[in-house]
Amino acid sequence: MHQTKVKVAEDALDANTTIANANRHDFDHAGVAVVNLMSAPGAGKTTLLERALEARGDVRIGVLEGDVQGSFDADRLSALHVPVVQVNTGNGFGGECHLDANMVRSGLGDLDLHELDLLIVENVGNLVCPAEFRIGEDAKAMICSVTEGEDKPLKYPLMFRSCELVVINKTDLLPHLDFDVERLIANIDRINPEAEVMQLSARTGEGTERFNEWLFAIAERRPRDAAAVEA
Amino acid sequence: MHQTKVKVAEDALDANTTIANANRHDFDHAGVAVVNLMSAPGAGKTTLLERALEARGDVRIGVLEGDVQGSFDADRLSALHVPVVQVNTGNGFGGECHLDANMVRSGLGDLDLHELDLLIVENVGNLVCPAEFRIGEDAKAMICSVTEGEDKPLKYPLMFRSCELVVINKTDLLPHLDFDVERLIANIDRINPEAEVMQLSARTGEGTERFNEWLFAIAERRPRDAAAVEA
Repeated sequence: MHQTKVKVAEDALDANTTIANANRHDFDHAGVAVVNLMSAPGAGKTTLLERALEARGDVRIGVLEGDVQGSFDADRLSALHVPVVQVNTGNGFGGECHLDANMVRSGLGDLDLHELDLLIVENVGNLVCPAEFRIGEDAKAMICSVTEGEDKPLKYPLMFRSCELVVINKTDLLPHLDFDVERLIANIDRINPEAEVMQLSARTGEGTERFNEWLFAIAERRPRDAAAVEA
Repeated sequence: MHQTKVKVAEDALDANTTIANANRHDFDHAGVAVVNLMSAPGAGKTTLLERALEARGDVRIGVLEGDVQGSFDADRLSALHVPVVQVNTGNGFGGECHLDANMVRSGLGDLDLHELDLLIVENVGNLVCPAEFRIGEDAKAMICSVTEGEDKPLKYPLMFRSCELVVINKTDLLPHLDFDVERLIANIDRINPEAEVMQLSARTGEGTERFNEWLFAIAERRPRDAAAVEA
């Protein structure tokens, strides 16, 4: 009698992992690096991306926009003459509150990945579920705004823990708020001591150069082989 | 031959509806009215509730706090000498991004509903999924902050459509923002023309009397029979 081989599905997100790996394969093949950018609604993802796209120089950037509904942010970024594809998470009962690997994959066909150095995925505005779904990215980054309160890292720990960069945005509003930036940074440090933390104002532009440098450096993580093939 | 009776489960949230109805039955029996308060992270739910609790007079209020993790808001509100119960949506892989009827039910045993006129449920900070789950409430209300952008009703339509009250918070910051309140109100009106809309600053207190009046009036929706039994 043969012994039955038992495979235990340990990861409830197994299907997502499989598809994320397929995305990763396609990104590697095309020689494109991918950033997954997340935040609460209204923290300033799109404004920060507008600043970065204006400063992109010869870095070839594309954007995949995730929203429950509409294409408001995609329209804003298209105006900066980069390829943008909109993925809506659902037109039915509320829609999903995050992008998963399959939703990202559904949008990839509308982008010529071989023509890009860097793909930025702007996730649905939400501090919970987007952090749970790997999409095949090179790096996860998040934005938190000084209007949101210093306790957010402790209330949404997975989001802060999963990101290698935490951008503190809207610093131009600090004089008008009862907000302790040092306490926010201490809370980030409690949850994710490895994270790089930077303060800026996407609205005024102050400090955005540092984010742009971080972002464009991600493009350097493109797989060398694919780059060699292109050269 | 008997004909097979076929019951089609039309509502994917059927189990939630069943439990929401059980919650509603308990609320009716106890003679308590319930408000489901929702917003994006950091829009000011807890600060607004602090203002309301300070002004509560003889309205007997309890709070059920929903968070992925921690009890920061519950601790703030407990300081105002009202019964508060904390429900955490998960200590494991990220946790749920919303309260559903069953999570609310899990917290009800720690509240003496018969001693309350009004139960306020402060949902997890998220503009998507909380709107999808009925918890047995009398009214749904949401807060959006002027720092979040005028487009939010169009990007998160179910949330705005499901609420009978939309509070526009942080109006004290308007002089420091590029924000068009009239455009936000027009967008709310496109999605939910029935909604009551009010502007206030929970931080300065300006305009909060109107919210308090709305909130305390919900307590008047308590079932008459239960109130008669108590009298």
